[in-house]
Amino acid sequence: MITLEQINEIALKTSSRIVFLVIDGLGGLPRPETGKTELETAYTPNLDQLAGDGICGLIELVGRGITPGSGPGHLAIFGYDPLRFSIGRGVLEALGIDLELDEGDVAARGNFCTIDDSGLITDRRAGRITTERNAELSSLLNTISIENARLLVTPVREHRFVVVFRGEGLSDNLTDTDPQKEGVAPKPALALSPQAERTAKIANRFADRARELLRGHHPANMILLRGFSRYPNLPTMSEVYKLRPAAIATYPMYRGIARLLGMENLKTGSSIEDEFITLKEHFKEYDFFFLHIKQTDSAGEDGDFEKKARIIEEVDALIPHLRGLDPDVIVVTGDHSTPAVLKGHSWHPVPFLLYSRWCRPDGVREFSERACLSGSLGTFPGVEVMPLAMANALKLNKFGA
Amino acid sequence: MITLEQINEIALKTSSRIVFLVIDGLGGLPRPETGKTELETAYTPNLDQLAGDGICGLIELVGRGITPGSGPGHLAIFGYDPLRFSIGRGVLEALGIDLELDEGDVAARGNFCTIDDSGLITDRRAGRITTERNAELSSLLNTISIENARLLVTPVREHRFVVVFRGEGLSDNLTDTDPQKEGVAPKPALALSPQAERTAKIANRFADRARELLRGHHPANMILLRGFSRYPNLPTMSEVYKLRPAAIATYPMYRGIARLLGMENLKTGSSIEDEFITLKEHFKEYDFFFLHIKQTDSAGEDGDFEKKARIIEEVDALIPHLRGLDPDVIVVTGDHSTPAVLKGHSWHPVPFLLYSRWCRPDGVREFSERACLSGSLGTFPGVEVMPLAMANALKLNKFGA
Repeated sequence: MITLEQINEIALKTSSRIVFLVIDGLGGLPRPETGKTELETAYTPNLDQLAGDGICGLIELVGRGITPGSGPGHLAIFGYDPLRFSIGRGVLEALGIDLELDEGDVAARGNFCTIDDSGLITDRRAGRITTERNAELSSLLNTISIENARLLVTPVREHRFVVVFRGEGLSDNLTDTDPQKEGVAPKPALALSPQAERTAKIANRFADRARELLRGHHPANMILLRGFSRYPNLPTMSEVYKLRPAAIATYPMYRGIARLLGMENLKTGSSIEDEFITLKEHFKEYDFFFLHIKQTDSAGEDGDFEKKARIIEEVDALIPHLRGLDPDVIVVTGDHSTPAVLKGHSWHPVPFLLYSRWCRPDGVREFSERACLSGSLGTFPGVEVMPLAMANALKLNKFGA
Repeated sequence: MITLEQINEIALKTSSRIVFLVIDGLGGLPRPETGKTELETAYTPNLDQLAGDGICGLIELVGRGITPGSGPGHLAIFGYDPLRFSIGRGVLEALGIDLELDEGDVAARGNFCTIDDSGLITDRRAGRITTERNAELSSLLNTISIENARLLVTPVREHRFVVVFRGEGLSDNLTDTDPQKEGVAPKPALALSPQAERTAKIANRFADRARELLRGHHPANMILLRGFSRYPNLPTMSEVYKLRPAAIATYPMYRGIARLLGMENLKTGSSIEDEFITLKEHFKEYDFFFLHIKQTDSAGEDGDFEKKARIIEEVDALIPHLRGLDPDVIVVTGDHSTPAVLKGHSWHPVPFLLYSRWCRPDGVREFSERACLSGSLGTFPGVEVMPLAMANALKLNKFGA
């Protein structure tokens, strides 16, 4: 497979524009009553037209049978091999609450938990305390100070929080304190390399101090930490592709991923229509747009088949506005499937369409899982989406003489 | 993917014969008036018949979205991964004018250019001097001698030339002297490894001497060098596949690539019919033939849709002669697409057909971009063509016990 370095050598800065419309969790499964997926059930004349004018296929984000998390799914779409690049658990959690991380920061995902008198874990989630209680206890943890490192504890939901360790020379090469089971004691963080010894000491000191501070706060009388990770140093999309990219996303995690790849996050409203308006307002300022639709995934996760289909229809109705801007390349796809019948992310390939003036039409006249099967792109790796889009925008020189 | 070493272990020497008919730039795009590509427009009863008797698909030479140069496109077809093996710019340019290179040679592409009184480049192409003027100035450069290295300057067209550095212990690991822009001075070649220091010194001495010699020859009063490259040491097709391969090509560059892979270049005339006659004359002497048709690519590059379709028809009319020879395997494809509407190489997959007694017919009865989409081979990597052809010629043992 061609590498980002090789792509970079042939990438051209041009005035053409690319729009990626990423409908989160787009792919689905048929509901038994009708034998049709969410996308097949939705009335989508505009997406069907776009499919007819473009080329279709299905994408595998990580690999056949592998269900992508949001990080790997998006990395793949933007051309970053998710088996080579990864975003750690702690960092992804931090991105998910819009925390600004610095380059040397190490972030970890934290849980409040319950321990008994002998220090053994009786509930890894502290009875799912309320988010309000979490906020109070997180403030308490924020009073902890450890020499030479700043600690920032930020509550998430229920029993979850993020802790960021900030300072010189920190490493993320250490083990979790969360044993992932009950009936045992929290483990100490262990350094996996000499460079990580100081960070492990800081993490363990933090856990010890937390135990003291939380002693009277049963059921949240201890913490567990996992997924220590540094802000990954990914080459930006402007470094790799020579693009000036912008993101339009309403959820923090996707804005975080966009920032990680060097996209500018545009201010937008909370509705899908707002996002399309934002696209229009800034269309002249950038040459690559990532427009993220979250609500399809949420409906899928909730098992709400009808709602997911309805949101797809809402997106479909906005397609004429997108086409009206006349981008050189339009890609419509998702970062993974979220079939309502499975109530979660799944491994099923995701419908994909690309429209440009330079694509070789393949006779597919409907945008659906089934119709895309007979598209000219077949079922192909998600990391090939970017080279394909760049080619269709005439932003790639030929490879080799 | 299976490696050349693994293929080699199972390759068998047999009396069966394989013919690769490579129609350069074969793939196209629909012209807006008819919605049909060049191949779909051409009347090709014989290719259609061959498709009906064989199996079809489309090939990606380098990767999805990647436009192959002629070197990478052909390397892929002959089973050499173009992301692993490469032919440098200087060497390709030398091959393109039929220069015989030795193994230790370093070749570079040269430009005559114009510099002003303060040594800054004012025209990277010296006003595109005539080829005749180029020949005179190249002779002048050929008088330069530098200790321990032979220098051979050969004019190409207009402002372009090839310089070959010949001697012991030369390296191609050095930077270009061509800054790729005007308003700056030519750069010195820099060694990228200690082994390249001597070569860099020789290249810089050559450029200095050229500046002195060309002083009175405005606008061609300086030179720029780029793409320093050594003749790549590729395993030959007879080493890898145990074949005795021959090439029939009218253009120097393709003969050069064939020689690089250890094929014998057969003397032929300049017409397409000549090439088929040459095939017939030598059919008993070799077990692998690369028959290269250049004119389709040239017509595509010129944007001459009609001409490209006409040349395809000309090739089609000669197919019965090819079939009359009764080769065990016939492959018809291209090294990349050259859609007339794009006037250049493109990234679009290339129609592919393979005929042998042992293929499993797939119902495709037409040789075209669209029809090949429903072929049994799907869209697949170009480097898989050789194993497939070898298998159909019963030239591969089974893999593993």
